[in-house]
Amino acid sequence: MRILGIDPGLRRLGWGIVDVDGSRFRHRAHGTCLSGEGDLATRLLALHGALSAVVARHAPTHAAVEQTFVNRDPVGTLKLGQARAIALLVPAQAGLPVGEYAPNAVKKAVVGVGHADKAQIAHMIGLQFPGVQVDGPDAADALAIAMCHAWHLQSSGRLAAALKRAAS
Amino acid sequence: MRILGIDPGLRRLGWGIVDVDGSRFRHRAHGTCLSGEGDLATRLLALHGALSAVVARHAPTHAAVEQTFVNRDPVGTLKLGQARAIALLVPAQAGLPVGEYAPNAVKKAVVGVGHADKAQIAHMIGLQFPGVQVDGPDAADALAIAMCHAWHLQSSGRLAAALKRAAS
Repeated sequence: MRILGIDPGLRRLGWGIVDVDGSRFRHRAHGTCLSGEGDLATRLLALHGALSAVVARHAPTHAAVEQTFVNRDPVGTLKLGQARAIALLVPAQAGLPVGEYAPNAVKKAVVGVGHADKAQIAHMIGLQFPGVQVDGPDAADALAIAMCHAWHLQSSGRLAAALKRAAS
Repeated sequence: MRILGIDPGLRRLGWGIVDVDGSRFRHRAHGTCLSGEGDLATRLLALHGALSAVVARHAPTHAAVEQTFVNRDPVGTLKLGQARAIALLVPAQAGLPVGEYAPNAVKKAVVGVGHADKAQIAHMIGLQFPGVQVDGPDAADALAIAMCHAWHLQSSGRLAAALKRAAS
């Protein structure tokens, strides 16, 4: 399994790719797509192009996107929704199943508590992938989302296997 | 000029195409793209595919999208933002300039008042394009957005021409 995690944002969209081999995780790549300047259509086009290039280059088999935190600022919510649409569309266009996780679920999976801050996420990602220099919190969050999805898929797989054994 | 107007919505996305020949407007086509069932990624993919097919078939030269009304329901705002990203992305992918208009500006341009309801919009669209059967308020709104953009481009063009004459 090769999992693409995406932390959507209209200005900066973080992505991270993790290879899963049995119970072993390997960091493959990560980065941040920038939407640049211009009107909204141009910025969404830039994000779409950059993220599509990531998918074409690394050929992930699964994808996961962080659920948007609906906050009290409606303008911010709208911007995040627009970025999130690109984050969901691009893997779907490549035929990938797309998982969605609430920010608290990702934090809990990676750090152990649901209220961890970005520095803690980055620290745990550093421990998980020694020697990998993750620049920027968006890419670290994206790697955390990929790992959260990997664990979820692994435990679903184990559960399905156990049910199959129990039924036979 | 062939103008594509889009009224974005996650469940139903209205579109309408108007040909502009001097001061004459001709209805070319209209319709509604449905996102269908499934998870959010699948629904956004369906909207993207359906709207891309409209652009490929009718080859508009300009596009305009209604600005999202940021309401007090953050979940609704988020959904609309996601649909709106598709509405902006698809014409941008075809290289079209994309205009954006607030709902009140569209209503004012088409009906004459900023607080017109959907029935009034549909009525004015019927008067503008006699013999055209517009089914559904989303497509009528989309045609109104296309006409609003046409008037805006025409008046910008006249202004530019007048400034050029004044400068020469």
